[in-house]
Amino acid sequence: MIIVLRLGHRRSRDQRLSTHVGLTARALGADEIVYSGESDKSLLKSVRSVAEQWGGGFSAAYTSDWKRFLKEKKEDGFRIVHLTMYGEPLTKLEEKGEDTVIVVGGAKVPGEVYEMADLNVSVGNQPHSEVAALSIVLDRLVNWEAKEFPGGEIKVEPCEKGKRVVKR
Amino acid sequence: MIIVLRLGHRRSRDQRLSTHVGLTARALGADEIVYSGESDKSLLKSVRSVAEQWGGGFSAAYTSDWKRFLKEKKEDGFRIVHLTMYGEPLTKLEEKGEDTVIVVGGAKVPGEVYEMADLNVSVGNQPHSEVAALSIVLDRLVNWEAKEFPGGEIKVEPCEKGKRVVKR
Repeated sequence: MIIVLRLGHRRSRDQRLSTHVGLTARALGADEIVYSGESDKSLLKSVRSVAEQWGGGFSAAYTSDWKRFLKEKKEDGFRIVHLTMYGEPLTKLEEKGEDTVIVVGGAKVPGEVYEMADLNVSVGNQPHSEVAALSIVLDRLVNWEAKEFPGGEIKVEPCEKGKRVVKR
Repeated sequence: MIIVLRLGHRRSRDQRLSTHVGLTARALGADEIVYSGESDKSLLKSVRSVAEQWGGGFSAAYTSDWKRFLKEKKEDGFRIVHLTMYGEPLTKLEEKGEDTVIVVGGAKVPGEVYEMADLNVSVGNQPHSEVAALSIVLDRLVNWEAKEFPGGEIKVEPCEKGKRVVKR
């Protein structure tokens, strides 16, 4: 099981990026997104509405206490992988199979996150994007290209040119 | 050579996401980002300032005429790869070595883009993020983990916990 924890969400500034984090988590095979920072019902609503419409049983939640959340997950046997441009090379990340919480930073990441993480890992040591880092890490952990999304209302039929969306 | 073309930038709404597109392009080994849509000097400035500070010779530019830009690149022998959730599977994308323009959509992508592209390719047929799609495609085309960024002012020294940034 893979859970993505997004830290430090700000309603006013991060709506779109946090939505992208959630949808990327879903599309590339994570099971759940948990947001921390400011509580934001419309963010949860928009991620959940995509999950309902497009299928696949992904869930979105909020925690006001990320520290307790990480502690509990550790007790449950999850490893904690924190994505940071300051971290160790991606090759340190072992491949598939383990229950993992992937921690994705926000504006300012508290020092405790680095301490609580089993692995602080970087997708290159350059400044870029939490969405990009999350994508590459999920790509290493999940065979997302084989993933199916049962139970949605609509789906895409891939085509050479243009768009084809069909009802299920 | 790999160029990323970002379509339909809107100054008011897309500043952060377009910045993430540019920085992701740079960090994962593209050579240039070209923005289209609304002209935005502060966007170019912020991407260029990261490139100067962190090294590696990445460039950022703006075109008011993406159609002419794509035509010229085609004439120069570039293949045009358009990222879209409606496109064909990623396995259709041939691997390394070719000069490529990767087209990343904005709010509304004109139908002509689908026609001009040599390949309309999807990173999963689910709604997610142009930053995520770009990351995965660059990961398939570029050996970014081996990329160096010479000439910058600062760099990260990877570490197990915390942050270490050094001057060059």
